[in-house]
Amino acid sequence: MTTETVRISFHQLQETLQRILQKKGFSPERAGLSARLFAETTRDGIYSHGVNRFPRFLEYLDKAYVDPSAEPQPVSSMGALERWDGQQGPGNLNAWTCMERTIALARQHGMGGVALRNTNHWMRGGTYGWQAADAGCIGICFTNTIPNLPPWGGKEPRLGNNPLVIAIPRDGGHIVLDTAMSLYSYGKMEVARQEGKLLPYEGGFDNGGNLTRDPSEILKTERPLPIGYWKGAGLSLALDLMAAVLSEGLGTAGIGELGTEYRVSQVFICVDVSSPAHFGLRQSLVQSALDFIHSSAPAGGDEKIFYPGEKTLRTRQENQTQGVPVELKLWQSLQQLVTD
Amino acid sequence: MTTETVRISFHQLQETLQRILQKKGFSPERAGLSARLFAETTRDGIYSHGVNRFPRFLEYLDKAYVDPSAEPQPVSSMGALERWDGQQGPGNLNAWTCMERTIALARQHGMGGVALRNTNHWMRGGTYGWQAADAGCIGICFTNTIPNLPPWGGKEPRLGNNPLVIAIPRDGGHIVLDTAMSLYSYGKMEVARQEGKLLPYEGGFDNGGNLTRDPSEILKTERPLPIGYWKGAGLSLALDLMAAVLSEGLGTAGIGELGTEYRVSQVFICVDVSSPAHFGLRQSLVQSALDFIHSSAPAGGDEKIFYPGEKTLRTRQENQTQGVPVELKLWQSLQQLVTD
Repeated sequence: MTTETVRISFHQLQETLQRILQKKGFSPERAGLSARLFAETTRDGIYSHGVNRFPRFLEYLDKAYVDPSAEPQPVSSMGALERWDGQQGPGNLNAWTCMERTIALARQHGMGGVALRNTNHWMRGGTYGWQAADAGCIGICFTNTIPNLPPWGGKEPRLGNNPLVIAIPRDGGHIVLDTAMSLYSYGKMEVARQEGKLLPYEGGFDNGGNLTRDPSEILKTERPLPIGYWKGAGLSLALDLMAAVLSEGLGTAGIGELGTEYRVSQVFICVDVSSPAHFGLRQSLVQSALDFIHSSAPAGGDEKIFYPGEKTLRTRQENQTQGVPVELKLWQSLQQLVTD
Repeated sequence: MTTETVRISFHQLQETLQRILQKKGFSPERAGLSARLFAETTRDGIYSHGVNRFPRFLEYLDKAYVDPSAEPQPVSSMGALERWDGQQGPGNLNAWTCMERTIALARQHGMGGVALRNTNHWMRGGTYGWQAADAGCIGICFTNTIPNLPPWGGKEPRLGNNPLVIAIPRDGGHIVLDTAMSLYSYGKMEVARQEGKLLPYEGGFDNGGNLTRDPSEILKTERPLPIGYWKGAGLSLALDLMAAVLSEGLGTAGIGELGTEYRVSQVFICVDVSSPAHFGLRQSLVQSALDFIHSSAPAGGDEKIFYPGEKTLRTRQENQTQGVPVELKLWQSLQQLVTD
């Protein structure tokens, strides 16, 4: 981060966010959980979706896109699979509740799923992957979004940059993949633009339809490059359709008609691998895969070999010890909100 | 295809393959199904994994990597989720059986899953997506492979180019995504090399560690580009771990130790969306998503906007009418095998 930052203890950061949310109408318990998830996201180094996103979350509360007291409700059930309605409640609390329910379904049926409609942005998707893995479950979840990615062969946004999360429990730190459908997020491109830097790899199309590393060009055309080009575009459509169909909620097309990203649809899937009697996970098998990738000769560039979640764990430990970095101006404004 | 091809009726093609498989020890019923899946794959235009792959399949039978009479056996069950052992039987028959079982579990529990170990290459992964969608199910399946993709930041193969399949039923033709983890398959790169063509986009690294469009360079370094670079590499690891952990079978690392790709691990997941009473799929919702992507202004290049499965359907119809294209030399050698 290039702007001036201060390091705040995790406890102080969470408490500050919690007090603000209570002033916005959250119950103490729900304010505490939501604040913890925001603070953990920043602590884990996912700065774009943690405290930096908190002001926009407050704005959505003020505009009534998000109802602070709404809780998700079960709509229908078919054994291992349930449909829930998020009632436009806070996205991170809704997602947390539905992943908890998914874990319970997996305990009961071996695997379980919840499809959630009428919810809001879940902030960091990886949160619910860590949640599932902490509970001894393989967790898969995904959300749809407002249209912000063109289909392959098109130049207007018709797909969502839908994050896909896959988490696998591991004693020494879970494997948690949290990947959106574009190579670079809008947040990452915005940061690069502000710093006057080119992207490390071509990340989208310029006005002439050519691939470019210039983030300002891509932010203008709104044509970020899907992962695997036509493949990521196809995966985005598949995730959107599954989320909308299973929840009977809005698809990306429908969210686009709202003009603002709310009332999104999500899916949570878990497999219980905590029980040695059934599908218990062999830690040695996971470790051998990680040892195997780390045994490759380095490619020789700047990139090191990491498994998904490995960098997160390092950043978490550093920020836990040294304090969570928060932009000074943001921190000051948060403190102002507490005392207002 | 550049080599001389003949168009064979689907029926004649299937019958020819079936007769060869019966001579190799397949029961008539199993020979018929396996032959149908090979023939359908070529009919659908996935030439690399259809009849073109049949000689290598026969070779694996001769080398006893594949046991023609072995059938998958259930190992353990936990409600909606089951573990099966493929007994090193033919990969396409094993996968078909396990997707059938997954569909049955989804009918019973809303969603269901089967993890399969000790199986063999399933040929076209999309086959089992079409199978699930034909049964009114959303289907997800994936397989691991021998190491043939480097981890991001590394230059030696440590990951599998694990295909991921997602299928969503649709009245006018299913949405079936069938995507490996590299931008271009080894098969596609080999074809481009033979034709002396550059790849449309950078598809891997050359000897100097630079991205290149030259397929012969990538075939030499064995460094194809994962979809979304570090993202596809992470997704590959996650799919491999899920397949190996849930089946208690071999991971990519373990398959690598065998030296030849057999005894792979796979996962099949279905959600039953055929029943209006429960999670019935609203066709209008699916159609609106397809209409939405097709409504984008074209990007202006050679690429048209397709949903996953759209091109397959066109090719299928064309090949069904005109006959399935098979390389003349291959067709002659297959006929020889029948009469030998």
